[in-house]
Amino acid sequence: MTNTEKALMLHEEWCGKISTESKCSINSREDLALAYTPGVAAPCEEIHKNPETAYKYTIKQNTVAVVSDGSAVLGLGNIGALAAMPVMEGKSVLFKEFGGVNAFPICLDTQDTEEIIKTVVNIAPAFGGINLEDISAPRCFEIEKRLNELLDIPVFHDDQHGTAIVVLAGIINGLRITKKDKSKCKVVVNGAGSAGIAITKLLLTYGIKDVTMCDRDGIIHKDYEGLNWMQKSMTELTNLDNKTGTLADALIGADIFVGVSAPNMVTADMVKTMNKDAIIFAMANPVPEIMPDEAKKAGARIVGTGRSDFPNQVNNVIAFPGIFKGALEGRASIITEKMKLAAANAIASLVSDEELNDDFILPEAFDPRVSDIVSKAVMDNIEPDGTNKK
Amino acid sequence: MTNTEKALMLHEEWCGKISTESKCSINSREDLALAYTPGVAAPCEEIHKNPETAYKYTIKQNTVAVVSDGSAVLGLGNIGALAAMPVMEGKSVLFKEFGGVNAFPICLDTQDTEEIIKTVVNIAPAFGGINLEDISAPRCFEIEKRLNELLDIPVFHDDQHGTAIVVLAGIINGLRITKKDKSKCKVVVNGAGSAGIAITKLLLTYGIKDVTMCDRDGIIHKDYEGLNWMQKSMTELTNLDNKTGTLADALIGADIFVGVSAPNMVTADMVKTMNKDAIIFAMANPVPEIMPDEAKKAGARIVGTGRSDFPNQVNNVIAFPGIFKGALEGRASIITEKMKLAAANAIASLVSDEELNDDFILPEAFDPRVSDIVSKAVMDNIEPDGTNKK
Repeated sequence: MTNTEKALMLHEEWCGKISTESKCSINSREDLALAYTPGVAAPCEEIHKNPETAYKYTIKQNTVAVVSDGSAVLGLGNIGALAAMPVMEGKSVLFKEFGGVNAFPICLDTQDTEEIIKTVVNIAPAFGGINLEDISAPRCFEIEKRLNELLDIPVFHDDQHGTAIVVLAGIINGLRITKKDKSKCKVVVNGAGSAGIAITKLLLTYGIKDVTMCDRDGIIHKDYEGLNWMQKSMTELTNLDNKTGTLADALIGADIFVGVSAPNMVTADMVKTMNKDAIIFAMANPVPEIMPDEAKKAGARIVGTGRSDFPNQVNNVIAFPGIFKGALEGRASIITEKMKLAAANAIASLVSDEELNDDFILPEAFDPRVSDIVSKAVMDNIEPDGTNKK
Repeated sequence: MTNTEKALMLHEEWCGKISTESKCSINSREDLALAYTPGVAAPCEEIHKNPETAYKYTIKQNTVAVVSDGSAVLGLGNIGALAAMPVMEGKSVLFKEFGGVNAFPICLDTQDTEEIIKTVVNIAPAFGGINLEDISAPRCFEIEKRLNELLDIPVFHDDQHGTAIVVLAGIINGLRITKKDKSKCKVVVNGAGSAGIAITKLLLTYGIKDVTMCDRDGIIHKDYEGLNWMQKSMTELTNLDNKTGTLADALIGADIFVGVSAPNMVTADMVKTMNKDAIIFAMANPVPEIMPDEAKKAGARIVGTGRSDFPNQVNNVIAFPGIFKGALEGRASIITEKMKLAAANAIASLVSDEELNDDFILPEAFDPRVSDIVSKAVMDNIEPDGTNKK
């Protein structure tokens, strides 16, 4: 049986990958009278008087919506809301299994930005956080920004920030090995979609100064045509000497390559032009921008991919469950850059000096310490003045 | 400790009355690769090719949304979406405990009819059915009607139809006891909100001919002022001789009284003017239209209320879990009047001739046979031509 056949068979057997379960047993009229009418009126009235108590009496305290419009699902593209369900259910499973967070899939039968925003605002009362997923760029930027303004619960687009946090954790540990100074590293990010942009932003927050972004037609610069508003804004922060050219040109003398683009974009010859001890994250899926053995043969020191069958897998599951766990427990109203940075540092710290090596820069997805340390990093970075606390 | 204190304490202990749980264990990279990437792509692609298979591979097959805008919550009124959460979580608990149906609360932060309709359509992909709850009239009629037109999954407003089904079951058994002919019974329904109207409609479908509806100002007739469009349409079906007068006038010579109105609306003197073997459903909560002992003393034979501490409780929990269980299993696209009628007959049939008496006309909420027999009634009434089947 192929893996595809096995996945289909299992999905049929599961009859849906999540269930909703009652936390209160209803075995008598008295149970009914406490969990439902007339007893339920008491918490309703408390919340009506003081909305804050919703966090005390309802699932809002520990439940996240996994929201997608199905416009950019995995490598499958725009397959729509219904076909995105298996992914969003799967994500809900991971929230529970890795972070102990309840999550429910909200797959939206619209791809209109305004309607998505309105719908998510309308359903927000039940949730303590919104995880956006697989929404295409540039709509995802607008949707996340506006929702964070409109809602007092955190809104986090995992394809952007989850990926960025894990890549940064990998780079932090890559630099521990190569002993390079972050402020002097030259980084090339290939792919200017949601992940590429979020990674770039977080690397800049971290203290890397020299990032060049590339897209299909090469280096992105101030006069590059066809940029969306978010890409345009990135030209103010990256490629500061406004160079032009191809990806190959960009890679000459680079210390770090981050690929969130397409298979086989990077050749061995390109890697050979990079600096000594080059670090490569080739995260196109399932076929990376360059295969790890090829990159290493061409001189790269550390290579990570999105795949579990190679070393140094960049897997968001080591970030998002802990991010939301911490946000919910700490009652964060937003996930700040500072929290993301702290999360990346926390993840990196889980690899001890003894364990750290070229093929082991990131903790395992199943490392039981991960979600706790990430959640603590988020909570420790809630401002004491309450500016990012609900 | 009072019951209110106990309910608050328990709600705090529960930390939310429902949780979402994973149905697939994720203990290895292989598990991850089957429930999430890359394996999850297979069911996504199947659903993209054939949307029908969402019922095979996702929670759509067994999951219901409990949708409210918090505009008419229990006896609490318009307390809004957030404060309605404990009720909608409670309802989700009952779906699971009594019908084995997964349910999730969708509390809408809008009370605009068009926006509610749009939002529910947008979130529908994850669900196999929509249970509307505690939405005020007359908006609830429009919302239910439009959603049933727009969606190919059943939309059912429980405050209307759940109540109507259980009241009809009680009346069927009341007539078994009193041996009256339904087509000759005179019925008075007091309260022309969502429940009163749905009850009236279902009684007419059942074969009762003479129904008079009353509201605050007495008997509703063709020239009654201030009726909404739905109440107006009821004047074509009820009070066929277009009488006017008070509730007291309406009750003279009536066989059955159904109250979904307010405490103490019916006096002993009014009951005395009713026909022999009168049946009374006094469902105002927590204080009925007339207390059972008072009604009986005044000559009523059978009295039901909404309360669990009196005989003959009209409790929706004996209807809605089985209704949705059957609709999901049978893949009904709508809940028809025929299905509701069959459900009422099925519920009534659970009380055997030996058990049936003035104080026992409805099965217990905890009777384990209830949801199966109701669900079967729904499935048996899906038209073989597929007109109400998805």
